[in-house]
Amino acid sequence: MDTAIFSLGPATIDSTVTVPQFINDDERVLIDLQLSSVKAAFASGGPTSFENAGPRRKIFFEPSRTKAAIVTCGGLCPGLNNVIQSVVRMLYFSYGVRQILGVRYGYEGLIPDFGHSFLELTPQLVHDIHKTGGTILGTSRGPQDIGRMVDTLVANKIDILFTLGGDGTLRGADAIHEEIKRRGLKISVAGIPKTIDNDIQFAHKTFGFATAVSIANESVHAAHAEAKSARNGIGLVKVMGRDSGFIASYVALASNEVDYVFVPESHFELRGEKGFLPHLEKRLAESKHAVVLVAEGAGQKYCEITGEKDASGNVKYGDVGVVMSTEIKKYFKEKNIPVVLKYIDPSYIIRSVPASADDAVFCIMLAQNAVHGAMAGKSGFMVGYWNSYYTFVPLKLATSGRKKVDPKGYLWTVVCEATGQPDFF
Amino acid sequence: MDTAIFSLGPATIDSTVTVPQFINDDERVLIDLQLSSVKAAFASGGPTSFENAGPRRKIFFEPSRTKAAIVTCGGLCPGLNNVIQSVVRMLYFSYGVRQILGVRYGYEGLIPDFGHSFLELTPQLVHDIHKTGGTILGTSRGPQDIGRMVDTLVANKIDILFTLGGDGTLRGADAIHEEIKRRGLKISVAGIPKTIDNDIQFAHKTFGFATAVSIANESVHAAHAEAKSARNGIGLVKVMGRDSGFIASYVALASNEVDYVFVPESHFELRGEKGFLPHLEKRLAESKHAVVLVAEGAGQKYCEITGEKDASGNVKYGDVGVVMSTEIKKYFKEKNIPVVLKYIDPSYIIRSVPASADDAVFCIMLAQNAVHGAMAGKSGFMVGYWNSYYTFVPLKLATSGRKKVDPKGYLWTVVCEATGQPDFF
Amino acid sequence: MDTAIFSLGPATIDSTVTVPQFINDDERVLIDLQLSSVKAAFASGGPTSFENAGPRRKIFFEPSRTKAAIVTCGGLCPGLNNVIQSVVRMLYFSYGVRQILGVRYGYEGLIPDFGHSFLELTPQLVHDIHKTGGTILGTSRGPQDIGRMVDTLVANKIDILFTLGGDGTLRGADAIHEEIKRRGLKISVAGIPKTIDNDIQFAHKTFGFATAVSIANESVHAAHAEAKSARNGIGLVKVMGRDSGFIASYVALASNEVDYVFVPESHFELRGEKGFLPHLEKRLAESKHAVVLVAEGAGQKYCEITGEKDASGNVKYGDVGVVMSTEIKKYFKEKNIPVVLKYIDPSYIIRSVPASADDAVFCIMLAQNAVHGAMAGKSGFMVGYWNSYYTFVPLKLATSGRKKVDPKGYLWTVVCEATGQPDFF
Amino acid sequence: MDTAIFSLGPATIDSTVTVPQFINDDERVLIDLQLSSVKAAFASGGPTSFENAGPRRKIFFEPSRTKAAIVTCGGLCPGLNNVIQSVVRMLYFSYGVRQILGVRYGYEGLIPDFGHSFLELTPQLVHDIHKTGGTILGTSRGPQDIGRMVDTLVANKIDILFTLGGDGTLRGADAIHEEIKRRGLKISVAGIPKTIDNDIQFAHKTFGFATAVSIANESVHAAHAEAKSARNGIGLVKVMGRDSGFIASYVALASNEVDYVFVPESHFELRGEKGFLPHLEKRLAESKHAVVLVAEGAGQKYCEITGEKDASGNVKYGDVGVVMSTEIKKYFKEKNIPVVLKYIDPSYIIRSVPASADDAVFCIMLAQNAVHGAMAGKSGFMVGYWNSYYTFVPLKLATSGRKKVDPKGYLWTVVCEATGQPDFF
Repeated sequence: MDTAIFSLGPATIDSTVTVPQFINDDERVLIDLQLSSVKAAFASGGPTSFENAGPRRKIFFEPSRTKAAIVTCGGLCPGLNNVIQSVVRMLYFSYGVRQILGVRYGYEGLIPDFGHSFLELTPQLVHDIHKTGGTILGTSRGPQDIGRMVDTLVANKIDILFTLGGDGTLRGADAIHEEIKRRGLKISVAGIPKTIDNDIQFAHKTFGFATAVSIANESVHAAHAEAKSARNGIGLVKVMGRDSGFIASYVALASNEVDYVFVPESHFELRGEKGFLPHLEKRLAESKHAVVLVAEGAGQKYCEITGEKDASGNVKYGDVGVVMSTEIKKYFKEKNIPVVLKYIDPSYIIRSVPASADDAVFCIMLAQNAVHGAMAGKSGFMVGYWNSYYTFVPLKLATSGRKKVDPKGYLWTVVCEATGQPDFF
Repeated sequence: MDTAIFSLGPATIDSTVTVPQFINDDERVLIDLQLSSVKAAFASGGPTSFENAGPRRKIFFEPSRTKAAIVTCGGLCPGLNNVIQSVVRMLYFSYGVRQILGVRYGYEGLIPDFGHSFLELTPQLVHDIHKTGGTILGTSRGPQDIGRMVDTLVANKIDILFTLGGDGTLRGADAIHEEIKRRGLKISVAGIPKTIDNDIQFAHKTFGFATAVSIANESVHAAHAEAKSARNGIGLVKVMGRDSGFIASYVALASNEVDYVFVPESHFELRGEKGFLPHLEKRLAESKHAVVLVAEGAGQKYCEITGEKDASGNVKYGDVGVVMSTEIKKYFKEKNIPVVLKYIDPSYIIRSVPASADDAVFCIMLAQNAVHGAMAGKSGFMVGYWNSYYTFVPLKLATSGRKKVDPKGYLWTVVCEATGQPDFF
Repeated sequence: MDTAIFSLGPATIDSTVTVPQFINDDERVLIDLQLSSVKAAFASGGPTSFENAGPRRKIFFEPSRTKAAIVTCGGLCPGLNNVIQSVVRMLYFSYGVRQILGVRYGYEGLIPDFGHSFLELTPQLVHDIHKTGGTILGTSRGPQDIGRMVDTLVANKIDILFTLGGDGTLRGADAIHEEIKRRGLKISVAGIPKTIDNDIQFAHKTFGFATAVSIANESVHAAHAEAKSARNGIGLVKVMGRDSGFIASYVALASNEVDYVFVPESHFELRGEKGFLPHLEKRLAESKHAVVLVAEGAGQKYCEITGEKDASGNVKYGDVGVVMSTEIKKYFKEKNIPVVLKYIDPSYIIRSVPASADDAVFCIMLAQNAVHGAMAGKSGFMVGYWNSYYTFVPLKLATSGRKKVDPKGYLWTVVCEATGQPDFF
Repeated sequence: MDTAIFSLGPATIDSTVTVPQFINDDERVLIDLQLSSVKAAFASGGPTSFENAGPRRKIFFEPSRTKAAIVTCGGLCPGLNNVIQSVVRMLYFSYGVRQILGVRYGYEGLIPDFGHSFLELTPQLVHDIHKTGGTILGTSRGPQDIGRMVDTLVANKIDILFTLGGDGTLRGADAIHEEIKRRGLKISVAGIPKTIDNDIQFAHKTFGFATAVSIANESVHAAHAEAKSARNGIGLVKVMGRDSGFIASYVALASNEVDYVFVPESHFELRGEKGFLPHLEKRLAESKHAVVLVAEGAGQKYCEITGEKDASGNVKYGDVGVVMSTEIKKYFKEKNIPVVLKYIDPSYIIRSVPASADDAVFCIMLAQNAVHGAMAGKSGFMVGYWNSYYTFVPLKLATSGRKKVDPKGYLWTVVCEATGQPDFF
């Protein structure tokens, strides 16, 4: 596992940042911290570790001549504006960088054909943006031509590119970084992981997740109220979670009102002896209502997958919320049992709220560390949060897999206990 | 216009209610209060007026022997539990009624075949229910056999039936009242209008409406954040409003973020010179985003109407949200203009929240007046709120039409000014 | 009761406002709408009525040459920014007025000595201000020299002054109007009542009140949680209500968690046989906790009144929250009963929130009608809301008394029933 | 540093808990995870580590004969009811413990003189309590006689005592644990750290903190709105933080609206060249408003300290909010500069809200691990959260110091940068 961070060259300029202490490049935090495995690792070559994030005493870029750009990609996530704001403030006030550009509408903004012009970012412009959801820069999905994006960076004399986005965006950032290396340019590419699903590897927590859980929780309350108020009432809620069911798992625990939760990591049968629908039938007979929570990537085997890809290049998933709604209604119609199903899909309501106060603080820390790393001349990295430490993680490593809910792990066990649901597989 | 309230017989029992003053049956409030029209009315037989609601000095039912029942019908609405709570508290504490039954799952609960048993309601049981959305009694849609429901009232020795529901429910309540009259029974039927759409005639305001507007407003914020964050971003929100566009109109005004609003009362063309879609195209070209708000009953001419009826017996409406989403996407695909449309349908989230504090107080007042009227032996009425007065309105009159947004009236003019939208017809 | 509105002169200019219909000056709405009293009034000279608010076909001021100013005075109230925004939009878009000034920091801003310069208000500047609490103009308390304020209006060629404020502010506005009349100037003074206490005469409802009740309700929840979690826990909350106890009354009803509520209109004894403290002692013995809600103007006889006046010129009230807290602790110390008292004073938290959606719509309507009246050349009036109609009410009449909770009336009776508190006097 | 957990005896009973895998007692997590220091530690005797929390394969207590008790002590904190609920559910459903007692009103409930009887806790009773703030058990401050509390445990055959509380409570729990050891009893004492201040050592995060930050943030918004709306407006907010300024620091960062923040760990002078008040004067001259945030334990040298102790035995702190308010007003009066100061103390509003969804999940995890540890026969420990792992930490170690904001550390540096405040010392 290669955890080394690429450097554009020797950092020789004195940093202007005021901090109690600077971090040295050789300060590292262990990845695994179980005593026995660390012991074993030391016995066999040393344990794997990440470089500590934080301000460096010497920086690579001369602030007064540095031009930085920020781009936000992919779906909305609470906290995007907070990160933008903090990157700008850190660059401007602490390092003295005066040229900061906002790239409009994701990677599109780096392709001249789209005709988007840059937004000049100042502390004044970003002063209140943390109070609003969305991203003031705009966003778009999907990749763009790497070479042409690098051309744009060069043409505009951009020294640092901050990319906020999920797995695909970070992979794009890494490709930009590789192309820059290939051309021998001195441009830093720094990633800040943005994933409402909390599915980025080597990031214990990502911004917006806690906020998303809180808002999604309200939809479960609504579904529960609807379900309890109807005879054989079924409240069905779909939440985000394309590949990882963290939001669904957390909401199931937090609300204490969910009877069934389905995540991409857990397979289930709808029918048959151990199937979900017969179990739901029993549940309704007993308590006359039920709440079902599905993550968007769950139950894809029941969805018609066309093979089509979305703008981000991912295979389009079927709409499991609609499928579940249809299948539940069909089943009970066959059984001649009247049910009242209310389906709630709160995705866009969740994605677009401002960050909670707790997430807001987290965004500041992530943003500041991204700036520290980039100003020190590091490139091709993202800021991770690992065992309470902020770290620099190579983009290649971060995008080499996904963080998932382990269906044999502790979280999922607690969730199944809380809901009382059996194994439907 | 017959505004007389039917009475089961002379009220001869001293009321136990402690009030600063009782209301006499001949106290009435004018329906129209424009000086010139009132003047003209006095010249020609006298102006129309409603009976003032409020406690009567003499009541018809002997509290200690009275048995009351409460039924909630139709869709959820913030405040249902508040009304239930207040009816129970008023009956119990102020009048001394000790037998109060909750009818389960709407009118179904009055048909023995469904096998629902009554819920015995006490002040203790309802103590905290105002903090929860939905209805603790459960609800269902649609009418049931009038004769059999009256049979149930008789079999269970029920003296008063409080019905909470919308237009259909109140019409059902009136039919029950008529059947009771036909049989010469002494059972009071009192209605409390429940309509999240605020579309009941002769009720200036209905409970839950203000709460609904507040919550719907948050969805518009979300749609706006989504729209602004995308290039050619379109936020589309569907809110309640089957026949009347009050929620949509209020939300458009309150949010100040809606560019187009469509209500059932206003017709519009999608295409053609004056159509909505070409206008939207121009708007996107200028400002790159737009927010569209539709009431569920708007644009039905563009929906495939099957003629099917829903459980409530209403002709099923097409899903205008889905239709608009499809039509917008189709139009811009034809024009080869990429747009990003985010569709939000927050209906069940809105319906299931607890009442706001302001609505909570309103619920108390409505509930208390319904009890006052029923205990005094009045029947076939609902409690109205008219020009700041609580009134008794005959159910027949209340259900003879619907309150609507006048497309030539003041509210709609203000809405169109606020959104800047032209006449699309 | 003189309800005639003063006019600066004949309105002769065609209004540019697009409305379905204009209102004539002789359209009036009855003040009292009880059938019997209206009938009697017609028999003896005719009933009293208010002039209907609304747009006039002919206006007095030539929009392109009109200069308007807006001033906000007194304590904060949810909705101030909404009103400012709507006044600006109405003047600008509907009438075509281009010169709109914001007066800084209340009436101070009309006295040159303070050195405040005017803020130029445009639709763009006010575009998002409804999302923020407070007032973008700033505010201050207290009167200023009338003559000098009129001098400032003249010196700056201001044609219309919109004043947002409570009783004192409106009295000030009337004095300005009188001075203008005395000098024979053609300047219109239009008031929009702003009182979080909802205590303005001839205004059934004022903006911000519903919002305030909602937020205050949360403090009562907090006090209740604190009280229930302690042995002999007492939650004490002080809410706004200098002379009128509407907020306290509504919150007591809405929360269903208040055991005692004290308002300025109801007198009470702390000690003695019928006193509050012995009653509280009994209550604690029974249920181990209690929630007490006081309006700031309640129980002044227990407060040390120094006779001092505040900036607004009102006699300074004692802090009844602190006094109650002290007296309760003292009493139980004497009795050797340990109690845990938690005192919450949420005033500034309540005053500073943005308006609820419902209040936001109300603000628009009030603001638009103020503009209609002023443009038509009316002066010395405020916009009232009376029995569902918007009205023009002479400032002199509006400030001739205060709206109060009638201690012998219906609202207070319902409140006392809900809390279960006896008469402590 | 002794991190060994005391055990009541060998765990020999098969656990009934269903988990993917059990944790062995020798699984440990490193305390420090910096590569260099861990390396050094291995070279010299091995690094310090905590025992991993989690379910054990063998348990000490026979569930069907086990009697557990839960006590909540000290001030309210969001999440108390969530923890109670989860302890009950875990004991009942996963282990099969049927006798679970709630101790009323903190440690008082273990002293018979107070006459409190235990509350029998069942899953049904605790079903919805997570939706309400406070603690259903009640709480009290201060220690009680250790010997008599142990007598009560013995007399009531209690096998496990779960204590929820802060530093003092945990110290009490440890004393109970020592007395139990001294008497040779087999009673487990398990602590769950509850501190809204987030000041418990060896717990990176404590429940309720994130919720508290969110609510406190709203008070800062209010103070900001008040301050901006007045000429020389000063918004002063006091938040919790007796010895540690985490809440104040986080809120200052999250809100982006605070100009000055004072925490117990940072000293400051009010007057003099480098003092706060002259700086505030300059700030007002420039921007006409300021927001000041103080933690309750800040600036004690300016408070009159009587030496009195509170119920918890802590020296009573002076009310720095009131002192700051007085000093600010005094200073500007001397300078003859009129200021408008609004002081907000939201403490009880913050403490009494229900836990946020994110905190709710955290509460479940803490509670479950406390149950796992206690059932395995461990005693004298608390559940810690350390570098993303749940741990068992000896109570003696946990209470041997306090977690604080390091005035020379990273967090405080970021806070000072964000507010722009200099060093006032």
